[in-house]
Formats: sequence, C-alpha cells, structure tokens
Amino acid sequence: METKLEVTEILKRYSKDIDQEINSALETVDPETLRQASEHLVKAGGKKLRPSLAVLSAEAVGGEVKCALKTGAAVELIHTFSLIHDDIMDQDDKRRGKPSVHILWGEPMAILAGDTLFSKAFASVMKSEDDGVSPERILPALNTVVDSCVKICEGQALDMGFAGRMDVSEEEYLMMIFKKTAALIAAATKSGAILGGGTPEQVEALAEYGRLIGMAFQIQDDYLDVASNEEDLGKPVGSDIVEGKMTLLVVNALSKANDEDRQRLLTILKEEGDTNVPEAVEIMEKYGSIQYAWKVAQEDVNQAKQSLDILDDSPAKDALLRIADFVLERSH
Amino acid sequence: METKLEVTEILKRYSKDIDQEINSALETVDPETLRQASEHLVKAGGKKLRPSLAVLSAEAVGGEVKCALKTGAAVELIHTFSLIHDDIMDQDDKRRGKPSVHILWGEPMAILAGDTLFSKAFASVMKSEDDGVSPERILPALNTVVDSCVKICEGQALDMGFAGRMDVSEEEYLMMIFKKTAALIAAATKSGAILGGGTPEQVEALAEYGRLIGMAFQIQDDYLDVASNEEDLGKPVGSDIVEGKMTLLVVNALSKANDEDRQRLLTILKEEGDTNVPEAVEIMEKYGSIQYAWKVAQEDVNQAKQSLDILDDSPAKDALLRIADFVLERSH
Repeated sequence: METKLEVTEILKRYSKDIDQEINSALETVDPETLRQASEHLVKAGGKKLRPSLAVLSAEAVGGEVKCALKTGAAVELIHTFSLIHDDIMDQDDKRRGKPSVHILWGEPMAILAGDTLFSKAFASVMKSEDDGVSPERILPALNTVVDSCVKICEGQALDMGFAGRMDVSEEEYLMMIFKKTAALIAAATKSGAILGGGTPEQVEALAEYGRLIGMAFQIQDDYLDVASNEEDLGKPVGSDIVEGKMTLLVVNALSKANDEDRQRLLTILKEEGDTNVPEAVEIMEKYGSIQYAWKVAQEDVNQAKQSLDILDDSPAKDALLRIADFVLERSH
Repeated sequence: METKLEVTEILKRYSKDIDQEINSALETVDPETLRQASEHLVKAGGKKLRPSLAVLSAEAVGGEVKCALKTGAAVELIHTFSLIHDDIMDQDDKRRGKPSVHILWGEPMAILAGDTLFSKAFASVMKSEDDGVSPERILPALNTVVDSCVKICEGQALDMGFAGRMDVSEEEYLMMIFKKTAALIAAATKSGAILGGGTPEQVEALAEYGRLIGMAFQIQDDYLDVASNEEDLGKPVGSDIVEGKMTLLVVNALSKANDEDRQRLLTILKEEGDTNVPEAVEIMEKYGSIQYAWKVAQEDVNQAKQSLDILDDSPAKDALLRIADFVLERSH
C-alpha cells in the first residue's frame, strides 16, 4: 500500500538545492549591511513552496529539476521582496516570528534590501543559461516572472485602495488577490513548465493550476481567520475583522445582508478592538458567507487538479495534485 | 562650415520615440492612482540623456535606432525608480522642481510606484523582440541592465554608510559613485551596443565610454556645487558642504590637509547652516582639491572619448563625443 505523500516531504526534496541557489544569488551583495538586510527574511524560513512548484512543473512536463532551480529561487526572492516592502507599507513589525527588516535596519535600508532582492531575482532567472537552458526558453520564462511583478504591485495598490471602502465587489476582491497572491504562484508554475520544455497546452495548464491554487490559498486564509482556532492560527481568531480587512467572507456577507445586518457588520469592521468579533462572525454565518468562502476555495482546488488532466502521470504530477489538496488541509 | 552639434538638438532627435516607449510601458498600469504616481516623475521632464545614449550606442556600431528604443526607455524607468526610492530614503521633498512622489501620494504608494517602474523596465527590454531583436541579443542586454540595478542598490547603501563617517577614502568614494551613478549610464551604452550588434570590442568600448562619462558627470556635480554660482545651479553654492556630503573635493581635502585644517573642515561639515561654507571652500582651495576634482572629471572625459577610437566615424559617434564634452560644459 502506498503511503500518502507528505507535502513537507515533497518540499524537502528540493529545499537544499533551492537554498543554495538563493545563497549564491545573494552572497556577493556588498556592502555587508545591505547583504544582511537582504538575506534576513529569506533565511528566516518559509516553506519555499513557490520554488518547489516551479521545479515540479518543469518535471511534470518532462524537464529536469536543474533547469528551473534558478527561476524557482527567483520567485522566492520576489516573494520576499514583496513581503519586505509590504511590511513597510503596512507598518507590520513582525514577519515569520521575527522583527521585520525595517524594524531591524530602518526603512531606507529595508526599501533597498527589497530592491536588491528584486534585481537579484531577475539576474537569477537569466543565469539559467549556466544550467544549459536556451535563451528561447529563458526569455518567455522571464517575461512570465516580470509580468507577475507588475501584478504584485497592482494588487498591493488595489488592496491599499480598499482601505476605508466598504463597497468592494466580489469581482474586485478576486482581482486583487489574483494580482497580489495568485499571479506569482502562477508565474512559478508557468515559468517552470516553459523551462522544462512544455508544450503551449501544458504551459497553459500549469499556469492555470498555479493561479487556481494561489486563489484557493488566499481564500482559505480568509476562511481560517474565522473558522480555525487561536492555537492553530498562532494569532487570535477574527484578526482580519479587527483590522477591518476586506476578505471574501466580508465581501460576500455585505452583498447579501439586509440593511440592518449590513450596517452592523460595517460598524464592527470600523471599530477598534475585538469585543464584537463573535457578532460579526454570526452575521457572516447567517448569510452563509463562511461556507461560501470554503466552497470557492474547494472549487478552485478541484479545477486546479482538473487542469493537470492533460499531463502524463508522473511523480511530479502526483506531487502537484497533493499540494493542491494541501492548500485546503492547512489549519493555519 | 559645419555648425557645432548642440547636445539639446541631439537629445531632441529621439525624445519623441523614447517618450512613446515610456508611455506605452506605463499606460496599462492599473489602478489609476498607481499609474499616476508611476508616471509623475517621468513626465516631470528630465533630459532623457540615458535613453539617447543607448540609441546612439546602437547606431554607433551600425545598428538601427529602433532596436535600442525600448531598452533606452527601460534605463530611464530604472533611473526614475531609483530617484523615487532615493527621495523617500533621503526625505527629499522636491525633485525636478516638483513635489516628490512620496509627498504627493505618501510613502507606501511611492514605494509601489518605484517597484512598478522597476518591473515595467524589464518588461520593456524584453519587448524588444517586437522590434525584431533576437533573444540572443536581448538576454545579454537585459543582463547588463539588471546588473546595473544591483549596483544602484549597492551604491545607495554605500552612500548611506558614508553618513557620519569622515574617513571615506577616495577609492571608496569612486566605487560609490561608480555604482550609484555611472553603472546605469554604462548599462545604457553597453546594452545599446549589444542590441545594435556590436562586436565584443565595440561593446566593451561603449561600456567604458558610459562608465567614464558617468563618473565625470558625478564629479562635475561635486565640482559645480563649489565652483558655480547660485543662478546657474538653481540652489545655493556649497549645498553639499551644508549637508555634510562626501564629495571628491571633501575626500581629497581631508586626505591632504594638516591636522588643524582637517579638524576645521570636519567641524564645518558636521555643523548646521551655511555660515562657514566660504571657509570650507578656502580649505579645499588651499589643498588644490577643487582643481583636482575638475582635473579628474576632465581626464575621465578624455579617456571616454579615446575609448571610442575603435569605432568607425559616423554621426552617432560624433554625437557621443559631443555629449562627453557637454558633461564638463554644464554649469549646473
């Protein structure tokens, strides 16, 4: 009987090679302070899910691990860059259980550290030539990655524009999380497939897979904030409500609620403190918004898995299917 | 009799095409606020010297204007990105006579606008494929541009590290301005030469030309701050001294002065206000540091021009020679 693939085991397979690529991308950064500030968050852990997705996508279309390692590392560098700049913009003092880069080195150095990671990411993709990848594959892979960077910026701008607005539509919300979160995951899988030599159909299928698990990942985050417990979450239940954040649950509840419930939910979202979080959850429950978010995430994952139907069976494909399920199994 | 080429005329030749490339790179940015914040500084003027250098370099090796336009635009976008982020880091409220991006839109949106320009710059280089440039040329051109971005970050970090230090060596200072200023100008000329199909020797010559006029440009800025007048400068003479900035003049004077003059100069650099600026200038004059900076800039320009000796004569080569001289003719 086959043992169920553990996602942590899958991610562990490539982590050493990926870490090595990230290290070699950053080790030459000079002066020392800039190097330390740039390395801090990358070395503070993280599952390295995105780079693994790039490598698995390359393998799933018959390519070698090697051809996608430097691009996988690049995607992780871009992810880290966006976290560093987001933490400055959102004035978040902690990340991955450690003080944010701007808390440790100040905002100017944190801005620069982000810019450095960004530059090094593109350099890393281009170095794929050293691994025998042709310019004809590197260029479209890089295009994919660069395009996702534009989207990350646009997604963050959309998210910032939501602050104080209480009439965000579901469509707007989904566009925001697509750009802010899903586009980079889609770039990881799509560029991996390109570098691995996938056919246009395979490349599109893996891009779609990445986009859908990216969407599900964010929506599941929204869901867990209300449906999980403090121990698993590592933070109090309903933090998003306290912060007045737009989530799929909130957007959905606001669109369905009667005037009275709608006004009450808006009031709770705007007020300070967590006293009325249970009441907000009750309103979302009343209109089926918690269940709705869970269902949307579930459907995204199912569609993500279906999009891989056109691929031949392989251990890499199995791993990708497993990762899709894992997105929903998370409790934090 | 031939009229002396006017640099403003040279720059005007390509400005329409360059502006069009920049516009088309940014016009799709969404949401609107992000697009406006991203466009603000690019549209606030600027001589567009860097893109013109890219195009002239392509022409000087026998290439067409078209092949380097999108990369020239990219270099201008990167230049603008670095100005926006630098203004946040240095808390500069004005740029090109207008309020800085972070003054108009706030720091978070200014960080994002910079990141957006950065992303769009790389996208622009890659779109050179639409102009018939092969991936084999685009990739090394992009590599050159990306490498200069890493250097810009490192140069800014070095510059920040100089604050409060009074023992900066000439070598350290020259490395800083190479990375912060000259590397991007060298990237413009080098990538232009690559895209225009230059031989490795031609590419190296144009890279060297760009590096040297970039160095001269910054050193001339240092020189003019003391040697020019308020009317031409558009700001009071000796602003660098008031700000306590490291310049080639200061670094040189500190290395040559006797203990007494050295201490006095350090005191003036550290103190607020402009009362003792004339005394600082006197000390720099006493040790020949003003003349020294002018000489270094002069030599850099001469070497820059010599490095073009290997190119066949052409209007583009003439224009590059003319621009090199122009670096020293500026009075502001």
